Amino acid sequence: MERLEQQIAFVRELDKLKRVQRQTWLTDKSRQENSAEHSWHIAVMALVLSEYAPGDDLDLGRVLQMLLIHDIVEIDAGDTFCYDQAAVALQTDQEKTAAERLFGLLPPDQAERFRGLWEEFESRRTPEALLAHSLDRLQPILNNFHTDGKSWRANGITRRQVRGRNRIVAEGAPPLWDYIEDLLQRAVDRGILKA
Amino acid sequence: MERLEQQIAFVRELDKLKRVQRQTWLTDKSRQENSAEHSWHIAVMALVLSEYAPGDDLDLGRVLQMLLIHDIVEIDAGDTFCYDQAAVALQTDQEKTAAERLFGLLPPDQAERFRGLWEEFESRRTPEALLAHSLDRLQPILNNFHTDGKSWRANGITRRQVRGRNRIVAEGAPPLWDYIEDLLQRAVDRGILKA
Repeated sequence: MERLEQQIAFVRELDKLKRVQRQTWLTDKSRQENSAEHSWHIAVMALVLSEYAPGDDLDLGRVLQMLLIHDIVEIDAGDTFCYDQAAVALQTDQEKTAAERLFGLLPPDQAERFRGLWEEFESRRTPEALLAHSLDRLQPILNNFHTDGKSWRANGITRRQVRGRNRIVAEGAPPLWDYIEDLLQRAVDRGILKA
Repeated sequence: MERLEQQIAFVRELDKLKRVQRQTWLTDKSRQENSAEHSWHIAVMALVLSEYAPGDDLDLGRVLQMLLIHDIVEIDAGDTFCYDQAAVALQTDQEKTAAERLFGLLPPDQAERFRGLWEEFESRRTPEALLAHSLDRLQPILNNFHTDGKSWRANGITRRQVRGRNRIVAEGAPPLWDYIEDLLQRAVDRGILKA
């Protein structure tokens, strides 16, 4: 039963991701979202939008697995606001330490598998990792747009920043990048994003 | 672009599941969980616990997909407390109507695929659906146990009710049922669940 006890300890630890708050607001503006529900949102997005990844042999299962586990490190490392450059610079080391501790709760074979998935996501090298990143970027842009730029305006974000930060979508899912470009233009026209 | 607009309309609608409140409390007792973060939690549980399903040709990808979409109907139908028999009786029709509207936002091929996944989950007939139900049942039991039976005590739930309601786990993941039986005994011994 030691194996199952280790697995349950990990499952119990996961609950903490529901308390990690992100900058993004729910579309009804009632509160900011947390990293657990965000992870769910982008995993369902993968089911709907995977056809926009280039190539035709994408492993959707691996995209789902990466999206489900990519934010678990935030239980220890917290969520980093993507436009805060100082915080982003510190983030890598903190997240590596977090991955060691959190995935290390699992039995060794599963710890290795989860670390592998997380490293693949972080590497941004495979089509699966690129699509996963693209969805992770698209969702907050959509929520920002549909809350009249609530988080953009609160943080004085410009279109140049959004484009620079999220250009990976052009690689991971080109038609979604076109969609984003159009959305950003509309956001600037509506005055909810700085030109 | 009509296809992508339909897909994005669905993605936008998904945000509402973050506001559907469940009876289960977070393990730190700070608040009740919502159906979006619950769906994430049990999807990661599938990555960790799928080895406990009987047989050796389980399609983990389909388990993940079912778990990710199984609660989307609650955006319209709300969450039903599983020990409220009157509500459970009304639930089926409401959820069918909800599935029509919500999955109907998608392009027809994807609407059909999502309805098919949801119907497979509801049917409880395949090993994948049985494992998915088992994880959907295990998670609230774990959270109840680790919050000193907060939701059990608030609703006067007995061990007989928990065993009756969740026996599907014995079919979908037998070792997890043994684990639950042991946990319920400990809950009764600690006085946080009625004998």
